[in-house]
Amino acid sequence: MSGSNDNAIPADLPLRNDLLGEEPYGAPQLDVPVCLNVNENPYPPTHAVVRSIEKRVREAAKDLNRYPDREHMELRQAFVDYLAKESGAKLTTDMVWGANGSNEIMLQLFQAFGGPGRTALGCDPTYSMYPEYARDTFTQWRIVPRKEDFTLDLDRTLEAIRDLEPAMVLLTSPNNPTGTPLPMEQLERILEACQDARVAGAAEGTRPVVVVDEAYIEFRDPGVPSATTLVGTYGNLAVSRTMSKAFAFAGARVGYLAASAGIIDCMRIVRMPYHLSAVTQAAALAGFDNTAEQLSQVAHLRETRNETAAWLREQTYRGIPLQVAPSQSNFLMFGGHFDDRGLIFDEMLKRGVLIRVVGPEGWLRVCMGTDEEMKVFRKALTESLRAAEAAHDQQD
Amino acid sequence: MSGSNDNAIPADLPLRNDLLGEEPYGAPQLDVPVCLNVNENPYPPTHAVVRSIEKRVREAAKDLNRYPDREHMELRQAFVDYLAKESGAKLTTDMVWGANGSNEIMLQLFQAFGGPGRTALGCDPTYSMYPEYARDTFTQWRIVPRKEDFTLDLDRTLEAIRDLEPAMVLLTSPNNPTGTPLPMEQLERILEACQDARVAGAAEGTRPVVVVDEAYIEFRDPGVPSATTLVGTYGNLAVSRTMSKAFAFAGARVGYLAASAGIIDCMRIVRMPYHLSAVTQAAALAGFDNTAEQLSQVAHLRETRNETAAWLREQTYRGIPLQVAPSQSNFLMFGGHFDDRGLIFDEMLKRGVLIRVVGPEGWLRVCMGTDEEMKVFRKALTESLRAAEAAHDQQD
Repeated sequence: MSGSNDNAIPADLPLRNDLLGEEPYGAPQLDVPVCLNVNENPYPPTHAVVRSIEKRVREAAKDLNRYPDREHMELRQAFVDYLAKESGAKLTTDMVWGANGSNEIMLQLFQAFGGPGRTALGCDPTYSMYPEYARDTFTQWRIVPRKEDFTLDLDRTLEAIRDLEPAMVLLTSPNNPTGTPLPMEQLERILEACQDARVAGAAEGTRPVVVVDEAYIEFRDPGVPSATTLVGTYGNLAVSRTMSKAFAFAGARVGYLAASAGIIDCMRIVRMPYHLSAVTQAAALAGFDNTAEQLSQVAHLRETRNETAAWLREQTYRGIPLQVAPSQSNFLMFGGHFDDRGLIFDEMLKRGVLIRVVGPEGWLRVCMGTDEEMKVFRKALTESLRAAEAAHDQQD
Repeated sequence: MSGSNDNAIPADLPLRNDLLGEEPYGAPQLDVPVCLNVNENPYPPTHAVVRSIEKRVREAAKDLNRYPDREHMELRQAFVDYLAKESGAKLTTDMVWGANGSNEIMLQLFQAFGGPGRTALGCDPTYSMYPEYARDTFTQWRIVPRKEDFTLDLDRTLEAIRDLEPAMVLLTSPNNPTGTPLPMEQLERILEACQDARVAGAAEGTRPVVVVDEAYIEFRDPGVPSATTLVGTYGNLAVSRTMSKAFAFAGARVGYLAASAGIIDCMRIVRMPYHLSAVTQAAALAGFDNTAEQLSQVAHLRETRNETAAWLREQTYRGIPLQVAPSQSNFLMFGGHFDDRGLIFDEMLKRGVLIRVVGPEGWLRVCMGTDEEMKVFRKALTESLRAAEAAHDQQD
């Protein structure tokens, strides 16, 4: 962690009881040559995109004394147009909604549908921020374990929906940190089951909201459908997206939601007024001005992922080949039998490569960098595995 | 309201029980020639400021594929430097914190110190968003009435701190919508009282956090001190500020907090990771590059306020002079005896001037526009008062 995390909170401050001893969330921000730890897109915005941002922001800056459009209608039209092109979803502006990163989208969903007495259900291992949204909104966080291959355990998930009566069911497609895709048949089974499900702590006749987090969906193989195409059919489906990954826009913090107009209206009740600045709206529109260009690297990153996965499967640790979780994302979870993953992480760091200790014990996660970065990664990992083996042998 | 507020939320969505029937917060966004309703600065950023934003954002855009500095250290240094210059506060970067508008600052304070079983105390009439922050964090919102002249009722406030044992005491300086300043002696009395106060629902030995909302403080008369100068003395004092008003930066959504390092650490626990985008950080830094220029209109707006207050006091409604609440802000609450303020609001709107129906019954609020806009305001108000009197006489 950077900053002053080490500071103990003074005992006379009335920090919420359930936050005592908590640390700020986030991966370490270290100054390392090759950063493959937070699933960023390694390709910076092109010159054309930068020019477009500059132009849009200059226009917005001239009126910066005025509050932005609270309803961000121009940007919502851009979400609609993009989703139509990217996944064939037929939506209207009252079915989309933007916020500061998809984590604000998720927080607003929890603010609308969670709260004391309400439960949110996730399928573990999954994105480690979900329990934080639950914590921040006093929502109970419950999990169903995924199968050993990280796919959804559909039977147990359906059972948990019946038994726990959650207000929200969180599905991640592809899943983070495993990269596992969510087949549409499974999603539809869950959506159907939720039509008849009850929600503990809510009025009779309400049913769970199914949230699909599609932060990394653009990296899926061509032809695989997106949950956004089901939004018109299911009034209780909410699909979260972000410009951070495929759009190489992590610094701009633009997340968005595709959902029924009713769900969007719920978001409008809990959002802070003017939550999305004029500058953010301008930058996001500039991103959509250059969709083809911004997405040009997605296909290449998909190839990098496939090649890296194949290479990783050829590597061994203590004589046993590495496993690689099948990924439809821009990152790979690999290993499976690392007896001291922290040591391998440290060895990588020594060699200038930052990866991530995340997910189940024994695994590590790496996100796809540029071709040059991936060369450095391969060399560093080969050396790190040998160094970790040597350290292990010495201990024995 | 713009957008689809009229839509009823479908009954099968599990919207939180306490939000059923709620409307999205916010003043109407109407297309009117003279907008004096949301306390914006009427003077747009100068050419130099726009150029500075453009330059800073261009630089940030080049790395937009990377997440922003979660700790926004460069911007925090700019907050420190500005507060030293503006109010003589001696702070360090671990005592300041930025967010998307001061309403995100306030929400984070409520997330850290509020919650079920906790109480926040305010002095009514005051900023109408406070109960929403409380609602969104399941904090109980309690109020002490202000005196008839809208100044703080110190005795009753101290009594309420003793009796209600709040986790947070919210003071607004100057107050919104009344414009009333908060004398430093009163603030220090409250801070002293809080040293020995208890917090219901928190551990023994904790004491309330005193939050001073200084959104409009730059419009105070010269020489009046800011609560930021007390931050070094009181570990439980948190002073919220914004670039929206004096800086004419409402569209950029930049709020910030000055407080003890312990309080800032609490903010770091509840904030969303990367809550402040690289583009927002760049725009804010550009604002601080041009502090003198950005603040050049503040003195003029102060004069406009004083002249407008004098003029308003000369106006009558039904033969009785208008009252004007003494204001240290860029807005004025006036009237006091409007028997149908909605009618006067509508008459103003007909004449192309948007003001605000807010505050106690019988009062209206207007914020200071350009010289040209204030001419239109005076003419429209004169006519609207006469029209409202005529309508009244017709009813009799």
